[in-house]
Amino acid sequence: MTDASVSVEEIKKHASEKDCWIVVDDVVWDITAFVPQHPGGTEIIYKHAGHDASLAYSSVHAPSLIAKTLGPAKRKGKVDSSTETDLLKPPPTKEAQPKLAVGAKPPLSTLINSYDFEAVAEKTLTKKAWAFYSSAATNLVTRDANRSMFDRIWFRPRMLRNIRDIDTRTKILGQHVKLPFFVSPTAMAKLAHPDGELALARGCEKFGIAQCISTNASFTMAEISGSVKSESVPFFFQLYVNKDRRASEVLLRDAEKNGMKGIWFTIDGPVQGKREGDERVKVESATFAQAAMSGATGTNDNKGGGLGRTMGGYIDPTFNWDDIAWLKKSTKLPIVAKGVMTAEDAVLAVKHGLDGIVISNHGGRNLDTSPPSLLTLLEIRRHHPEVFQHLEVFVDCGIRRGTDIIKALCLGAKAVGMGRSFLYSLTYGQEGVEHFIDIMKDEMETTMRLLGLTDLSQCHPRYLNVCDVEHLIPKSLESSFPDIPQFPSAPRAKL
Amino acid sequence: MTDASVSVEEIKKHASEKDCWIVVDDVVWDITAFVPQHPGGTEIIYKHAGHDASLAYSSVHAPSLIAKTLGPAKRKGKVDSSTETDLLKPPPTKEAQPKLAVGAKPPLSTLINSYDFEAVAEKTLTKKAWAFYSSAATNLVTRDANRSMFDRIWFRPRMLRNIRDIDTRTKILGQHVKLPFFVSPTAMAKLAHPDGELALARGCEKFGIAQCISTNASFTMAEISGSVKSESVPFFFQLYVNKDRRASEVLLRDAEKNGMKGIWFTIDGPVQGKREGDERVKVESATFAQAAMSGATGTNDNKGGGLGRTMGGYIDPTFNWDDIAWLKKSTKLPIVAKGVMTAEDAVLAVKHGLDGIVISNHGGRNLDTSPPSLLTLLEIRRHHPEVFQHLEVFVDCGIRRGTDIIKALCLGAKAVGMGRSFLYSLTYGQEGVEHFIDIMKDEMETTMRLLGLTDLSQCHPRYLNVCDVEHLIPKSLESSFPDIPQFPSAPRAKL
Amino acid sequence: MTDASVSVEEIKKHASEKDCWIVVDDVVWDITAFVPQHPGGTEIIYKHAGHDASLAYSSVHAPSLIAKTLGPAKRKGKVDSSTETDLLKPPPTKEAQPKLAVGAKPPLSTLINSYDFEAVAEKTLTKKAWAFYSSAATNLVTRDANRSMFDRIWFRPRMLRNIRDIDTRTKILGQHVKLPFFVSPTAMAKLAHPDGELALARGCEKFGIAQCISTNASFTMAEISGSVKSESVPFFFQLYVNKDRRASEVLLRDAEKNGMKGIWFTIDGPVQGKREGDERVKVESATFAQAAMSGATGTNDNKGGGLGRTMGGYIDPTFNWDDIAWLKKSTKLPIVAKGVMTAEDAVLAVKHGLDGIVISNHGGRNLDTSPPSLLTLLEIRRHHPEVFQHLEVFVDCGIRRGTDIIKALCLGAKAVGMGRSFLYSLTYGQEGVEHFIDIMKDEMETTMRLLGLTDLSQCHPRYLNVCDVEHLIPKSLESSFPDIPQFPSAPRAKL
Amino acid sequence: MTDASVSVEEIKKHASEKDCWIVVDDVVWDITAFVPQHPGGTEIIYKHAGHDASLAYSSVHAPSLIAKTLGPAKRKGKVDSSTETDLLKPPPTKEAQPKLAVGAKPPLSTLINSYDFEAVAEKTLTKKAWAFYSSAATNLVTRDANRSMFDRIWFRPRMLRNIRDIDTRTKILGQHVKLPFFVSPTAMAKLAHPDGELALARGCEKFGIAQCISTNASFTMAEISGSVKSESVPFFFQLYVNKDRRASEVLLRDAEKNGMKGIWFTIDGPVQGKREGDERVKVESATFAQAAMSGATGTNDNKGGGLGRTMGGYIDPTFNWDDIAWLKKSTKLPIVAKGVMTAEDAVLAVKHGLDGIVISNHGGRNLDTSPPSLLTLLEIRRHHPEVFQHLEVFVDCGIRRGTDIIKALCLGAKAVGMGRSFLYSLTYGQEGVEHFIDIMKDEMETTMRLLGLTDLSQCHPRYLNVCDVEHLIPKSLESSFPDIPQFPSAPRAKL
Repeated sequence: MTDASVSVEEIKKHASEKDCWIVVDDVVWDITAFVPQHPGGTEIIYKHAGHDASLAYSSVHAPSLIAKTLGPAKRKGKVDSSTETDLLKPPPTKEAQPKLAVGAKPPLSTLINSYDFEAVAEKTLTKKAWAFYSSAATNLVTRDANRSMFDRIWFRPRMLRNIRDIDTRTKILGQHVKLPFFVSPTAMAKLAHPDGELALARGCEKFGIAQCISTNASFTMAEISGSVKSESVPFFFQLYVNKDRRASEVLLRDAEKNGMKGIWFTIDGPVQGKREGDERVKVESATFAQAAMSGATGTNDNKGGGLGRTMGGYIDPTFNWDDIAWLKKSTKLPIVAKGVMTAEDAVLAVKHGLDGIVISNHGGRNLDTSPPSLLTLLEIRRHHPEVFQHLEVFVDCGIRRGTDIIKALCLGAKAVGMGRSFLYSLTYGQEGVEHFIDIMKDEMETTMRLLGLTDLSQCHPRYLNVCDVEHLIPKSLESSFPDIPQFPSAPRAKL
Repeated sequence: MTDASVSVEEIKKHASEKDCWIVVDDVVWDITAFVPQHPGGTEIIYKHAGHDASLAYSSVHAPSLIAKTLGPAKRKGKVDSSTETDLLKPPPTKEAQPKLAVGAKPPLSTLINSYDFEAVAEKTLTKKAWAFYSSAATNLVTRDANRSMFDRIWFRPRMLRNIRDIDTRTKILGQHVKLPFFVSPTAMAKLAHPDGELALARGCEKFGIAQCISTNASFTMAEISGSVKSESVPFFFQLYVNKDRRASEVLLRDAEKNGMKGIWFTIDGPVQGKREGDERVKVESATFAQAAMSGATGTNDNKGGGLGRTMGGYIDPTFNWDDIAWLKKSTKLPIVAKGVMTAEDAVLAVKHGLDGIVISNHGGRNLDTSPPSLLTLLEIRRHHPEVFQHLEVFVDCGIRRGTDIIKALCLGAKAVGMGRSFLYSLTYGQEGVEHFIDIMKDEMETTMRLLGLTDLSQCHPRYLNVCDVEHLIPKSLESSFPDIPQFPSAPRAKL
Repeated sequence: MTDASVSVEEIKKHASEKDCWIVVDDVVWDITAFVPQHPGGTEIIYKHAGHDASLAYSSVHAPSLIAKTLGPAKRKGKVDSSTETDLLKPPPTKEAQPKLAVGAKPPLSTLINSYDFEAVAEKTLTKKAWAFYSSAATNLVTRDANRSMFDRIWFRPRMLRNIRDIDTRTKILGQHVKLPFFVSPTAMAKLAHPDGELALARGCEKFGIAQCISTNASFTMAEISGSVKSESVPFFFQLYVNKDRRASEVLLRDAEKNGMKGIWFTIDGPVQGKREGDERVKVESATFAQAAMSGATGTNDNKGGGLGRTMGGYIDPTFNWDDIAWLKKSTKLPIVAKGVMTAEDAVLAVKHGLDGIVISNHGGRNLDTSPPSLLTLLEIRRHHPEVFQHLEVFVDCGIRRGTDIIKALCLGAKAVGMGRSFLYSLTYGQEGVEHFIDIMKDEMETTMRLLGLTDLSQCHPRYLNVCDVEHLIPKSLESSFPDIPQFPSAPRAKL
Repeated sequence: MTDASVSVEEIKKHASEKDCWIVVDDVVWDITAFVPQHPGGTEIIYKHAGHDASLAYSSVHAPSLIAKTLGPAKRKGKVDSSTETDLLKPPPTKEAQPKLAVGAKPPLSTLINSYDFEAVAEKTLTKKAWAFYSSAATNLVTRDANRSMFDRIWFRPRMLRNIRDIDTRTKILGQHVKLPFFVSPTAMAKLAHPDGELALARGCEKFGIAQCISTNASFTMAEISGSVKSESVPFFFQLYVNKDRRASEVLLRDAEKNGMKGIWFTIDGPVQGKREGDERVKVESATFAQAAMSGATGTNDNKGGGLGRTMGGYIDPTFNWDDIAWLKKSTKLPIVAKGVMTAEDAVLAVKHGLDGIVISNHGGRNLDTSPPSLLTLLEIRRHHPEVFQHLEVFVDCGIRRGTDIIKALCLGAKAVGMGRSFLYSLTYGQEGVEHFIDIMKDEMETTMRLLGLTDLSQCHPRYLNVCDVEHLIPKSLESSFPDIPQFPSAPRAKL
């Protein structure tokens, strides 16, 4: 197909909601029909209507994505370079690019734990990107408890065992992995590094660990899974169910086609939490890139500038347990529900025939004072241990140490996910990801040896002393308070 | 009636306790008989005896109040403007007006939670006003525990429910409201903004929430309830019972006449607590306005400069449960006792046929180490759940988040009150009040959705994990210590 | 008796341990025989041997004490003023006097609680005096827990009672007092103010509270009790039992003669604890006065410069329960044992027929991690409530608020003692003492009213919620660990 | 034997791994065969291959060690001083010597507790030495809990006992000692002071306390035990079992020959923990001396610069309970297992006929969130009190106070070990060691007196209130969670 040549004057005419063109890498696209479905919201795009959006686009999306998404029919041609193309440029923004001040970073070899990566990320990401990644809901109680709960569990290390050779391999949904931790799905890895999810995939391949790809990834499933040797490591696909179920069905078919080994559908984000750290950084000072990454419209409503608040135009808030039937019908892949916070919901997952659950509170980002993941794990273990026999239980939120991983496994988790930490390591590109995995692997192996374990099947609660948190596990799943009928609210007649 | 013209010389003669005139807005009043009943104490007024008190008066009271209170018989005429009226002026005070440095405040849109309003108030209120509002009793244990107790209760969020449409309506004493939180009664809202309670009322009307008017409000009940469309939102009236019961009876009749929907009589303040933050700011440096707001005499006694300490000349310290009969006889309105701190008193409220109780410790302002409100709520729920069937239970103290509101409701509260937060939002006038309500509404709705609730009737203890505070609920209301007869204090005879 | 005139040359000859004269207020004394019994140790005196010790003496002792103690036989005459008396002066010491920088102190009226007095004392006492008063044993765990334990007990306030008139009177060992707190015995009040215990006595008289006089008081019992109207308030006498029992018997007779109403003998200080704050301030920089106050020899041994460490030459470390018989035989006064820390010892006190106990850990000054007083009170109340029927239980350590007093009384204490706080208030002399008592009285009365109590006999555990500390009370006084015979320490023979 | 004279040219030829000579104190040694067995790793030595290593050697090792270790056959002769010996010198290093800035230290007499010694050590040791000594595993949870757990146990002091004379003697493995604490084995004491373990031994002799000599000591067993009067105090020998059992057998024979009274073999360090404080100080900036002290290779691998990480080339990671038989066969000395952290392992120690155990988590240096020693002690005491009848139980980790010692003894410990504190005191040489022991002795005796104990056999749990930590002791050694068979990881077939 030979591209038409489109003049700047022509492009600038299509700058309204009802008729919206943008330019990406000299190609002119009509995105009028697509905008309402944009996961990043509509406003972000309308800001670039009739303009060149290349810079903003490319800092978040892979080049191929727009063509794949819109199809050739929406391609209006190439910009007529004889016209004044400068008129298409958005005004320059000081913070247009994440501050990947590579030179200013400390040498990778000086980073020796996950906290070090976090500290570097805080300094080298843009203010808005950092706010988005690091923020959590309101008082941050859950975010912090996710972490501190691990340190309140004592090990019970056993001595004088032959621990020369240890084996850290396991299976996730039947897929072999060399280590029991994986990349949790997080949006827009390109913001941390141009190679985004591709670098994550290559790092994972090297160490044989699994990666879960977000619906909002910077690259397509095909690009990501295609960046490593076929079948070398398993990929899973994270799904937000769309109000338009057909859109989700397309994604599910894509997942199968691209060799995904399972679907992790997120159940804890029907609406987004109030992440004040995020809201305090103004959208005005953020670029398209950062705005888009949260999948938010970026509107500064009267509750603050948070990107996450108004997101979710496309997520279906009516989706409920009854809809699981549709999901199971729509894919042959194993299904994992991500975001379980109670033993009751774990049981429901079993009843609905799911293949796994991820105990998660979204990193404390949604509902503050949601229970820390470890507490939910303890609750299920106490009250419904049979759950572990029917499906695989994964845990994320708060994992920062090899000791954390082993503790989760001792309580029944099959593997654990890490999200923010991987994004932070990605600021160093693939090399950073590998260094980070190596650190976690080393911490985990040291923990196994010092605990007296030689393979993961030996993980067992007997290696833990949970006395300091045991009182936090509900004694019964029934409320411990007497049931009372609601007070009839009309005031009694006066006598 | 034609006003007499009163010369400055004449006015200045009436400057003693036994013969006390003041000038307000050029009108001369004889307040000799009224002074002893002034809720703000006598000394404050005597300082202005024989002088123009307009500035001080107007910063606290609505113009109409003095005429209504004193009646035409006490009106001595207008100031003869041909005489040297400057002599009537009190010496100028640097802090005569609250520092409503409107221009210096951050834009309202940048305030995104209740703590933001508090931070602005701390900077923009006068030192004395801030001290009065924010202070609490002695070591501040209860004030802080009111707050922290909420964060020690975990949610138990349930996923995969259809939470698209939610309903936040409820009824308070039979009155429809759109949200389950209301304005707790607080004194002298005019100090935070000239529109005072009127701005609160208009903000509440917009969002359909209830307001409880303080005995010590800056405006009259008629003015406040008249500032919004009739019956658009319910008002309640807060009562301190006067030693002179007839004075209280007048107020109660006024309440009915002005459409109040219930009487909230305060039972936890027979004397005032020791609020050291308040006491450390000298009365000397405070204006009449600030002094008056606490309803205190403003005397610097030898225990400090606190405004609240010596208050209560008119509050009846003998009022007890037996006097409830009088109260019920004196009004047809529903009656709510504000300040219940034990399950025993909740039961007594039921026995005495009250219509509601407010669990409250006066914001930690009266008796330090009084139990945080949430603990009292848990205690009643555990030991006397039948209370919730006989009357409506409200909670105030420590509510700062939408999550707090839902937690209180899950434990049986019908609605919750907020006091200080509303005053702080009022520093931005009606617009601030509305922004604040909007924030709380949004937080609460987000909480409901992420918890899996679609209307308030679904609130239930099963959505909470109270394990971390459960040990604080007395196992029995009987003392857990063996009863012992008192030691006979005379020393035994020596043998 | 006409005094001889003694030349400086002569005086300076008697400057050895075996022949030791000192000059006080121009009078020459032979103290050779007395020095070994000096409660303040010998070294302090030997430093002044052959010199004028007036300044040092008078900052600690009343003028009359030396004559009374030594008797006329030891009086060698007056200094011959024609000789070079300057030679008698000790070298001037910059810190010779406590920095009673009266002018620099904040006005008394601005002090509104016990912490304020403490803050002033820290700034106006000498470094050494502050170190001595404020220090406690090693890690300060007990000192701080004494305080914090009070704030972990919630009140259970009862509303709607007639609390207009309240009565704070009680009896201590049969003696009428107007308030249930008293002055705990502390050494050398003169260091805080020249009027020392006299000012304390006069302040107590004004408010009708009891005072317990220390063995190491700056004034004699006669002077102290004589400074107020006879029988207006009760005095008690604190006793450390001397190795030389006859010395103690003399003191006991003195106590009866001077109208003391009871003997409080200290049982928790057979040796002194390690008070590091005290030890870090060098004796070299301290004056005789400060050194003496601790009753220590003031030696800088190789464990630091602490005054308290080497004290106790005269305290009998062999004194035990069997010796109570001697004590009872030696006095007709009621006997109170000060320093009980376990329920077992409380029971022993009953068995030995004592009239009272003071639950005390010496302000956390002796053995760190001794139980806070409130915990011991709870322990006795739980396991041996009959103790309260047989003797009077007093509590000291950690009392800083009126709320603390009422809590102790609700748990069975007859009255509470305060030590350091009284010394700190004494930096303002009698006026400070009165202001301090007034504050405590006011706090206590406010607490009673807000709690719903009108007299002290109503104090009862039902007004407290002790759930937060209840788990700290031993479930049984028997050790909860299985008993094991000691391991025979010889290694087993190898086979 | 007359030494050959070896030219510098010749020496410099032997500078490879396969042919490695070094010069120590002008003597030339061939260490090619020895290097792989060097406890301090190989790299450290190769850095000095073909050079003069005197300075580095002597700061860690006693002069005699190299001759003893290598034997005369490896002695190549003396350096030919006529050649250019300067060529042998390693480049000067600023930090070549620990900063034993003796002059800058505070006078020893001003140090009054163990924390004071720690503070001085932090300032006067080299940065690397301080990092090595003070660091602990990852989040430092266990290191800090070792300490804080002691302060959470209350004493229950008993009054009115005759405590004039107290006896602190006990026996360790049948050996008489005057105090119940000893020197825990720590590597390379020479780093803290040139006299190293000799100074420790002499200090111990003076006070009659035991010393446990590390495998990695700076001096030989013979030198250390020979530095004090024969049999005056007992020595024990700490053993890491070598992969080459014969090497260990040689050490065991040496131990018997040199009069060691027992073997303490370390069981909790099959691999080393991740000590980040240590890893963050670069090996590059450390001297041979500091590098060697950890027994590490000193490689900066990609996990940081920690010295401890890659150690253990010679420690046998396969050693397990079955190998105890070999150990018992290889020595006639009593055997103590150091590093027990569970009651189960304590029972296994009994079953395998050991003579003692040390409850230890290696100072929190190996596996973070290992249980604090006191918790393990409580666990054994609760669940297997019979252990104390079969072997001697020692405790180390976290002991800083005399109160800590008595608490451990009251719970059944025979004696306690201190490691870091002794090294810190050693910065003052023997005098520092003595002052430190004197302080601990004094604290311990004061504790006994104030607790009412006169000899150590009276130590008993009844003197402790452990209520605050009792909930941390597992209720049962079986896991409190229901056992579940592992989930079969293959995903279920889709229907």
